[in-house]
Amino acid sequence: MKEVIRLGLAGLGTVGGGTYAVLKRNARDLLAACGAELVVKTVACRNLERARGVVDEGVEVTSDVHALARDPDIDIVVEVMGGIEPARTLVLEAIAAGKHVVTANKALLALHGNEIFDAARRSGVVVAFEAAVAGGIPIIKALREGLAANRIEWVMGIINGTSNFILTTMREKGLSFDEALAQAQALGYAEADPTFDIEGIDAAHKITILSALAFHTPVNFKAASVEGITKLAAEDIEYAEEFGYRIKLLGITKRTARGIELRVHPALVPKRRLMASVEGVMNAVVVKGDAVGTTLYHGRGAGAEPTASAVVADLVDIARLMHGRRANPTYLAERMAALAPQDNTVWLPMDETVSSYYMRIGVADKPGVLADIARIFADNAISIETMVQRGSEPGEESTEIVILTHSAVEGAVRRAIAAIEALDNVHGPVVMLRKEEMN
Amino acid sequence: MKEVIRLGLAGLGTVGGGTYAVLKRNARDLLAACGAELVVKTVACRNLERARGVVDEGVEVTSDVHALARDPDIDIVVEVMGGIEPARTLVLEAIAAGKHVVTANKALLALHGNEIFDAARRSGVVVAFEAAVAGGIPIIKALREGLAANRIEWVMGIINGTSNFILTTMREKGLSFDEALAQAQALGYAEADPTFDIEGIDAAHKITILSALAFHTPVNFKAASVEGITKLAAEDIEYAEEFGYRIKLLGITKRTARGIELRVHPALVPKRRLMASVEGVMNAVVVKGDAVGTTLYHGRGAGAEPTASAVVADLVDIARLMHGRRANPTYLAERMAALAPQDNTVWLPMDETVSSYYMRIGVADKPGVLADIARIFADNAISIETMVQRGSEPGEESTEIVILTHSAVEGAVRRAIAAIEALDNVHGPVVMLRKEEMN
Repeated sequence: MKEVIRLGLAGLGTVGGGTYAVLKRNARDLLAACGAELVVKTVACRNLERARGVVDEGVEVTSDVHALARDPDIDIVVEVMGGIEPARTLVLEAIAAGKHVVTANKALLALHGNEIFDAARRSGVVVAFEAAVAGGIPIIKALREGLAANRIEWVMGIINGTSNFILTTMREKGLSFDEALAQAQALGYAEADPTFDIEGIDAAHKITILSALAFHTPVNFKAASVEGITKLAAEDIEYAEEFGYRIKLLGITKRTARGIELRVHPALVPKRRLMASVEGVMNAVVVKGDAVGTTLYHGRGAGAEPTASAVVADLVDIARLMHGRRANPTYLAERMAALAPQDNTVWLPMDETVSSYYMRIGVADKPGVLADIARIFADNAISIETMVQRGSEPGEESTEIVILTHSAVEGAVRRAIAAIEALDNVHGPVVMLRKEEMN
Repeated sequence: MKEVIRLGLAGLGTVGGGTYAVLKRNARDLLAACGAELVVKTVACRNLERARGVVDEGVEVTSDVHALARDPDIDIVVEVMGGIEPARTLVLEAIAAGKHVVTANKALLALHGNEIFDAARRSGVVVAFEAAVAGGIPIIKALREGLAANRIEWVMGIINGTSNFILTTMREKGLSFDEALAQAQALGYAEADPTFDIEGIDAAHKITILSALAFHTPVNFKAASVEGITKLAAEDIEYAEEFGYRIKLLGITKRTARGIELRVHPALVPKRRLMASVEGVMNAVVVKGDAVGTTLYHGRGAGAEPTASAVVADLVDIARLMHGRRANPTYLAERMAALAPQDNTVWLPMDETVSSYYMRIGVADKPGVLADIARIFADNAISIETMVQRGSEPGEESTEIVILTHSAVEGAVRRAIAAIEALDNVHGPVVMLRKEEMN
């Protein structure tokens, strides 16, 4: 039983600064919750001058992150630097030194989680990572513990605030993607290089972690099919609205009879679902379990204190464990260990996934085009739910056909699209988006 | 470390049956999650004949619930009978016998929680109750663990599915309360005697429990101000819509500088909030924490398997503890124990709470009435946000004034209403509803 638990904080950026502030402001409540005092012993970061201005007297400041792992007086290492290195090495060093680790690093876990969780299992320490997905929303805890009674069927999340802000702005203000991105950058919601957010990579890191938790598999980022929002046109957002849908960038993982789906892409979501009303930088995750049905978790997915809320919740869990009040185990690591020798998880390739689809096809306004397209759908066993032809203006020679399909296999849809694009009277590439009814 | 954990199931109604089914169907996954097998050893219920038809061979069936507490081979008692007695006695007997308890009984905990948690603390056992609030939504775990870093500011919940179904039906179909209640009864969403649901008592039990968790106080059902939905008129729902609000029955608990608010009443919720879109029998809870901001939790608040999902999650937590994998402590009991000797929680009387208000006033269509009313508001320091007078038809002598106020103290509002009702040209009682912006 420890009366004081000493922390090494690696990183003093947005999340590190927020964590320091929450630990300080709520120290009295946290002492009551943990039965032990959480004390930041050392902060490791690049700008020592700035750090000394942030932390209180008596807190050590160093530029050597590896010193945290070596320090025998540090009980828990909090990794909030981001990036792969030196974060990966620090985390493995801390684990090897028998320290518990709390990390907010989704890229690290999505790419190197198996190595890290395996090391943690062998060292008997906890690697906690609530802050890695959906910021302050306790979705990791919900999946591992709150929904432990359920066989999880699927998880879908709006888990990238930047791209959700851009989509909201496109829809509300009728802007193009580029215009909305510029607004997001001006407001500080998108970075100068927004690639990770707008190309779906950040969301893919997060859904990779949720997938491993939901289905008790190793993390497998390589299995993810990833498509961002950069190619979305304002008119697709408008058509979706007309049909009763909103377009959201979703991270999706599903257990099917033929394997596990893992994918990120924009999708049409029915407006009547709460998910369609998740706007701006907010995040939300829906989980479908066999007993509970769907539950939804909504809140801020980024920002200093929302993310710190998750980091500190992990610290409280570990502190309760160290204080003998018992907390949660390295649960993912344990389940994975049981699986690892005989892991035969089948990850479904994108072509074998099943969705319903939205397509927009530019065509010459001539007789017979529609019949040709309908024939191609039929040949590929794709059944059409709704088809709308935008009436062309007098003098215009081209028009657009918008189609919603019933459930179909992605590979068949891709073959149909290739065949449609090869038609003489079809102009340009076919726009294809998936549709998720979230039943 | 136990390889088999034996359960005594007290009650085989909706929740008991659902719990039995989930334990059986997901046995393999639960074994992996717990590291131990969860085995129902004995079921106690009234109808032994029916019970034998439900449970598998080898499961004991008894009509004596107290036998579960006496049986040395039972490790955990699962109380899913409902009602106060014999549930209370059984739970206390089980605790005294050193058994952990899982209960779904909100009335029991709201009324006798302090006695039960104190006994659990003294016996060193866990009393877990995720199923007591909002069915399958893991809101208890979120409050105790997921949001442990936060100083909670308030909790608001749609936590009674029956009344939410009635409100949804009234709005969507333009029905009166009585008509909507009849529909709910026909569909099995309301009981023959719906008093607990429609008068807000069930919601008050639940918000009492959430309040104790959020603010680390003893449970204090007596502090709750409770108002149901029976007096709601269809026209108030319509007016609310016009102003951009939906009416929801909310359980509310807030920490203020002057004390803790604990109340249940219908309230106007802005349509742009997700809470306004929680329809039918669904439940949702919003928690405001100082670090995370608001997070929302949404799902099924009742039903066999959603509730079983919560019961079994509690079993998994306790099993991990017993199996040496460490689970969560009797957290509420511990925090309360620290508080109990010097508990000086101030519970704010309803008259001292601060809200904004909706009022509907029937008046004679004569000059001066509006001036009289405005004067009374001013005298009571209540500031008006919006005032609408419904234009009376030719020949009609009476009309209605609908008012939305800015924040005001409830006592002042009540005094103003009394003064308004005493005016000569005011007809009948003033309809008053509270408004929650949920900021």
